[in-house]
Amino acid sequence: MLEDKNEKPVSELDELGEFGLIKHLTQNIKLQNSSSLKGVGDDAAVIEYTNKQTVVTTDLLVEGIHFDMLYMPMKHLGYKAVSVNLSDVYAMNAMPKQITVSLAVSNRMSVEALEELYDGILLACNIYGVDLVGGDTTSSTSGLIISITALGEGEKDKLVYRDGAKENDLICVSGDLGGAFMGLQLLEREKQIYNENPKVQPDFSGYDYVLERQLKPEPRKDVIDMFAEIGVKPTAMIDVSDGLSSDLIHICQQSEVGCTIYEDKIPLDFTTINVAEEMKLDPVVCALNGGEDYELLFTISLDDYEKIKDQKRVAVIGHITADKESYQFVSKSEQVQELTAQGWNAILKKG
Amino acid sequence: MLEDKNEKPVSELDELGEFGLIKHLTQNIKLQNSSSLKGVGDDAAVIEYTNKQTVVTTDLLVEGIHFDMLYMPMKHLGYKAVSVNLSDVYAMNAMPKQITVSLAVSNRMSVEALEELYDGILLACNIYGVDLVGGDTTSSTSGLIISITALGEGEKDKLVYRDGAKENDLICVSGDLGGAFMGLQLLEREKQIYNENPKVQPDFSGYDYVLERQLKPEPRKDVIDMFAEIGVKPTAMIDVSDGLSSDLIHICQQSEVGCTIYEDKIPLDFTTINVAEEMKLDPVVCALNGGEDYELLFTISLDDYEKIKDQKRVAVIGHITADKESYQFVSKSEQVQELTAQGWNAILKKG
Repeated sequence: MLEDKNEKPVSELDELGEFGLIKHLTQNIKLQNSSSLKGVGDDAAVIEYTNKQTVVTTDLLVEGIHFDMLYMPMKHLGYKAVSVNLSDVYAMNAMPKQITVSLAVSNRMSVEALEELYDGILLACNIYGVDLVGGDTTSSTSGLIISITALGEGEKDKLVYRDGAKENDLICVSGDLGGAFMGLQLLEREKQIYNENPKVQPDFSGYDYVLERQLKPEPRKDVIDMFAEIGVKPTAMIDVSDGLSSDLIHICQQSEVGCTIYEDKIPLDFTTINVAEEMKLDPVVCALNGGEDYELLFTISLDDYEKIKDQKRVAVIGHITADKESYQFVSKSEQVQELTAQGWNAILKKG
Repeated sequence: MLEDKNEKPVSELDELGEFGLIKHLTQNIKLQNSSSLKGVGDDAAVIEYTNKQTVVTTDLLVEGIHFDMLYMPMKHLGYKAVSVNLSDVYAMNAMPKQITVSLAVSNRMSVEALEELYDGILLACNIYGVDLVGGDTTSSTSGLIISITALGEGEKDKLVYRDGAKENDLICVSGDLGGAFMGLQLLEREKQIYNENPKVQPDFSGYDYVLERQLKPEPRKDVIDMFAEIGVKPTAMIDVSDGLSSDLIHICQQSEVGCTIYEDKIPLDFTTINVAEEMKLDPVVCALNGGEDYELLFTISLDDYEKIKDQKRVAVIGHITADKESYQFVSKSEQVQELTAQGWNAILKKG
């Protein structure tokens, strides 16, 4: 898993040139959505969503800031870059349909590495029913940069914003939290060991779950499908990219409400708890501030509780309050603390 | 004009943080298009084009590859980054309505420099009637990276692709060519002088036109408006970003046709000719291969000649032929040469 993808300087990229590279990477793309009228190859792509609203979101991933090529396999990187964008579209209760992908690539990278990156991008596209319809490829003076824009469609009265949470609404989250952060900590630990002695091979057995959470997150299309099936429209929704605390505070600030959540309700996976204990970190603090889980955090009306209470993929973790500057966290010992949007730096200082 | 924007390391960016930065830069944005339903501030922006098709294009600009901060004023850079994207939308015979802007910023940059960049971005948005609806701001390990995606709307039967050129169609281009390349050569020359002796101030008097062509290109909305007014729909269209040769060959390859263009028809500005002569370059070669003019290159049916012949902003430079691998350039002395997509490297080697 640990390898230096920069060790083999290749000139193939220069030989292919910009046009050749785009053509090479996009030649096998087949459009699958009827709304994708024209894909790669003209000045712009053309899309038509009949009687739907268009949702647009964009993300920029920078080598050395958002990913480390030493432990991030290229295929996973491509997959994750798409996942994080689709997650934003799902968080609007909309369906992603198209993406554009722009890359800045240093000529230290091999064509094979870029092919793997595209394999990951196209795998995610296939799994989530999305077409790659355009993009730009250019040189980089330093590392790899990936910019993805996702477009999706939603019905006008089904879109969910961040500002609709009301007093007494239930706060829910899908899946479990903190795993992606624990995966990152494991990878960072092994990287240090590798840097000190490249002959020691990392042993990740038993840690698969948290590594996958970090390296290959899945956006929660299934939760959006569930909303349609059970007839629930959340009052507010966001995806958990910065961490539960920070993202819940976003909802509260935009909805002008407060919240109370309960430590014993926060969903944690067994592996996350084990790794956290091994690393002497509090798994709940990791769930609150770790981020990158790409779960959906949403609020529903109390009236919808019956519809959602037996859904195994969703946990009810608290409720919305009227007091708009109060963000409360109730610990297992029933102590009340203030939630703050502190991010992952705070975990390591505490931990 | 020549200044090192990196000389003042500031920590304000770190103090503002990512959320603070986005908020700071986007707080005064007012949406102006009825199709922009939701802008910055949620997981995604929401757009609705009633009964129109959506056009999407994206570009990535990398410091050191696409721009040099030494001679590119930040406001111009922002303006140009928007212009080049809008140009792609106009080249579909569509109207741009929204953009998203993602930035990767090194913490060497000051908040003031970013404000200037956004001033330029928003100035272009205002002039061309476009809303900034979303984006992402992140750290960069090296230089500045700007990724812009533009969305626009077009009527289904009015969109113009690259693949519709037919035998006998007339080849037309708006404005004049080669100016942006000459502007770049001037700036590069002054940069060398500056690097050798920073006390020598550059003298650009009389060169304003070509400098503006390079630093602050204007996308040709007026030409698209003209098509609507005079009732002409081009058969194929592209914007001149790589150079006349290369972009005309794109049209021919996608339309499976050939072309003949005439040296004496290629529109050149007086300043472009003067600067080229001063630098011992052939201005026509610069027009063919220089690129970055962001003019519209299009083909029209012979039947539309009467409608377009008196339009001062358009020149007819040749015609489409049936011979699909023949791209002919007829010189003033009536010699026939083969056009090749060689780009600007070729000019300097020849020159």
